[in-house]
Amino acid sequence: MLKQCRSLLSRSLQSAKWGDGFESRAAFSTSLQDFAATGNANGRVFAPYTIYKGKASLSISPVLPTFVKMDSDIGGLKVNRRGSMMLTFCPAIGERKYDWEQRQKFALSPTEVGSLISMGAHDASEFFHDPSMKSSNAGQVSKKLCIKALDGGNGYLISLTVTNNILKSNERFNIPVTTAEFAVLKTACSFALPHIMGWDRLTNQSPKGIKGSPSKVNSKQHFDLEWDR
Amino acid sequence: MLKQCRSLLSRSLQSAKWGDGFESRAAFSTSLQDFAATGNANGRVFAPYTIYKGKASLSISPVLPTFVKMDSDIGGLKVNRRGSMMLTFCPAIGERKYDWEQRQKFALSPTEVGSLISMGAHDASEFFHDPSMKSSNAGQVSKKLCIKALDGGNGYLISLTVTNNILKSNERFNIPVTTAEFAVLKTACSFALPHIMGWDRLTNQSPKGIKGSPSKVNSKQHFDLEWDR
Amino acid sequence: MLKQCRSLLSRSLQSAKWGDGFESRAAFSTSLQDFAATGNANGRVFAPYTIYKGKASLSISPVLPTFVKMDSDIGGLKVNRRGSMMLTFCPAIGERKYDWEQRQKFALSPTEVGSLISMGAHDASEFFHDPSMKSSNAGQVSKKLCIKALDGGNGYLISLTVTNNILKSNERFNIPVTTAEFAVLKTACSFALPHIMGWDRLTNQSPKGIKGSPSKVNSKQHFDLEWDR
Amino acid sequence: MLKQCRSLLSRSLQSAKWGDGFESRAAFSTSLQDFAATGNANGRVFAPYTIYKGKASLSISPVLPTFVKMDSDIGGLKVNRRGSMMLTFCPAIGERKYDWEQRQKFALSPTEVGSLISMGAHDASEFFHDPSMKSSNAGQVSKKLCIKALDGGNGYLISLTVTNNILKSNERFNIPVTTAEFAVLKTACSFALPHIMGWDRLTNQSPKGIKGSPSKVNSKQHFDLEWDR
Repeated sequence: MLKQCRSLLSRSLQSAKWGDGFESRAAFSTSLQDFAATGNANGRVFAPYTIYKGKASLSISPVLPTFVKMDSDIGGLKVNRRGSMMLTFCPAIGERKYDWEQRQKFALSPTEVGSLISMGAHDASEFFHDPSMKSSNAGQVSKKLCIKALDGGNGYLISLTVTNNILKSNERFNIPVTTAEFAVLKTACSFALPHIMGWDRLTNQSPKGIKGSPSKVNSKQHFDLEWDR
Repeated sequence: MLKQCRSLLSRSLQSAKWGDGFESRAAFSTSLQDFAATGNANGRVFAPYTIYKGKASLSISPVLPTFVKMDSDIGGLKVNRRGSMMLTFCPAIGERKYDWEQRQKFALSPTEVGSLISMGAHDASEFFHDPSMKSSNAGQVSKKLCIKALDGGNGYLISLTVTNNILKSNERFNIPVTTAEFAVLKTACSFALPHIMGWDRLTNQSPKGIKGSPSKVNSKQHFDLEWDR
Repeated sequence: MLKQCRSLLSRSLQSAKWGDGFESRAAFSTSLQDFAATGNANGRVFAPYTIYKGKASLSISPVLPTFVKMDSDIGGLKVNRRGSMMLTFCPAIGERKYDWEQRQKFALSPTEVGSLISMGAHDASEFFHDPSMKSSNAGQVSKKLCIKALDGGNGYLISLTVTNNILKSNERFNIPVTTAEFAVLKTACSFALPHIMGWDRLTNQSPKGIKGSPSKVNSKQHFDLEWDR
Repeated sequence: MLKQCRSLLSRSLQSAKWGDGFESRAAFSTSLQDFAATGNANGRVFAPYTIYKGKASLSISPVLPTFVKMDSDIGGLKVNRRGSMMLTFCPAIGERKYDWEQRQKFALSPTEVGSLISMGAHDASEFFHDPSMKSSNAGQVSKKLCIKALDGGNGYLISLTVTNNILKSNERFNIPVTTAEFAVLKTACSFALPHIMGWDRLTNQSPKGIKGSPSKVNSKQHFDLEWDR
């Protein structure tokens, strides 16, 4: 079964216009400026899971969402930029040597991660991203990620194709992945999914104030009620 | 297989009368008053997972339980109001525009979440909630949530019907959900389930006092014994 | 398939005599004394998952392990008493009324939890506990827990039988559990399993000192090497 | 199906030479020196899961990765030595007595853990480690771990063979593992996998600075973008 998931990243980033803390394309630039302004990244941890194969390597690492304070009087945080699972492909340039400068990236959205972790032993998935969608440059560069079960159920082939219609270039990376490596991908992505969605921030951990009065305990909770209208 | 889950929320909220920290309908009002009294919600994080479709959107977000201090001499916290997974439906009012004012909510209890995450590719589930159950207003408003696998195993249809017998109104929201989106729902709900049950508070994290004497270590543990009577 | 798991709790508590921090029966008394000595239980959280049925109720709640400081020069903590999943059965004494005074408990060890979470839709499991095993009172009181799939795959029957050969008493609790409720049990027990094993203490959370020198970072890690002998 | 996983540990430790924080064999010595220099291990927790059988015991425990500060101006941490799941086998030397001095270890890499947790009820896995691979001592000592489903689907046999061609010795440990015990191994290893990969450090927990300005919030995030080249 081929699951065609034309879930264009740009579309999901621009589609929501109601006041629910949804990220927009502009938020990307903001984040970059914020980073440039502060100029440090203390606390960042680099722990990619990397699969080295003959012609290319594939690293996968979660990218956490960013949060901003809400404007409303009641305070709180909302998601500014959604998290993702970042796949980074590097071509081999010798025996066990990989060229980081020639890397290509593909950021799986939460729903695309859902597609990956629900794949069975005979499934295939395709994802298409266009960085310039809905702008005048739409269609100039496109990326296609394919994940396809190998015949016989002995692993998968993960391939990324980057097509640049201006440079007339076409890059392709092929990574054969064993069943064991794919199990790591699925388990690690399942673990990471709630984190890239920002749901780990919603938990009861760090129960500050629990020794205070009950009202303080309750005020720290998110308590929408089913019957409030 | 149709799993009929007439697990009326009000019933489960009112059924337990023994001294085990069980929430009652009254606890809802208490929580609201507590919130009104303190007047802030610092620390709240908004990170719903939202599925946008042609006629409606569906957002899902965990609602954590609230805790109160126990009256007994030994202290400790007990659950005041149980957590839930809050589903919020908004009707579309234009291309990629959704009307938050017209939203309808449905709060899945832990057991209803168990029903969702155990659904196979050909299953269906139905849940019925009555906000006024066991009061004189019982039956005036009712909500029905259906989750039904689509033919061919290519995703699910999630629909909410809200019937108001006084206003003679009947609202219905239909959200077709892909296999990938449902995998996100299942994974995220499985992650959230222990948190909405309050079990993340039971873990060994934040090991304060572990450098003290063994007795202090032990006194922080909950150690009911199987043989204590 | 009936999995006969005669994993007598007492045996596993008393069987290990090499210096690896294994709990013994004596540790139980120690814990109780420690608790009596300190006389408080601040920080304890009560959040059982309870299933209310016509003739009895079943509450399930994780019991965390206790730790003691190691005697060796290098410090560190070892498990003193192993954690468990505590099942508490109460008989019904009226409509939606359950008698806490008449409760009976059954503590699932980590391996017994493994048996529960690996049960398929047509499996059965049995567990036998004898509180006095290997003492002169062995066989006086015994407890048997059965978990059995219902015909047709629509849920399970969980039953506890407590036989007291001195009092000539025989108590039995039957709890029919729906597929949704069992999914909550499995998911919550899978979540809790690493915690009752004490493995949540082994994680990289609370990275104190990570801004210090690399040696400080490394010294906080457990670094047995495969090749150290 | 026999999955032959000749994923020699030494190879994976030495194969990566590009600037991505990859551990090398030398890092092992460094860690040891760091430990010797600091001379303590406060905060270490010992909570192995141990299976005691007639001829040998098997303990399993996660070994966390170590981190070092990055040299770059932007700071941050990278993985120094990769984590693993450490399997320790001890021979029985009497009834319920096991000889810790005669232990043999086998460290499962993340990918080998992926192999274990993806095993079905009829699968088998083999792993080969050579501590001296790529050195002049290659082939002198080798370790082979086999995990094999028993006929009838009632559990597994885990065996370790250590061959020393210099001492002309050959040690073998056999541990029959029940379905329940294997379920604990799979669940605990699935829990531990993101931790031995270092991914628990990437989460949104410990949200220091979230009350500060948005830029501070953002600067704490890892925000590689898919489109940055």
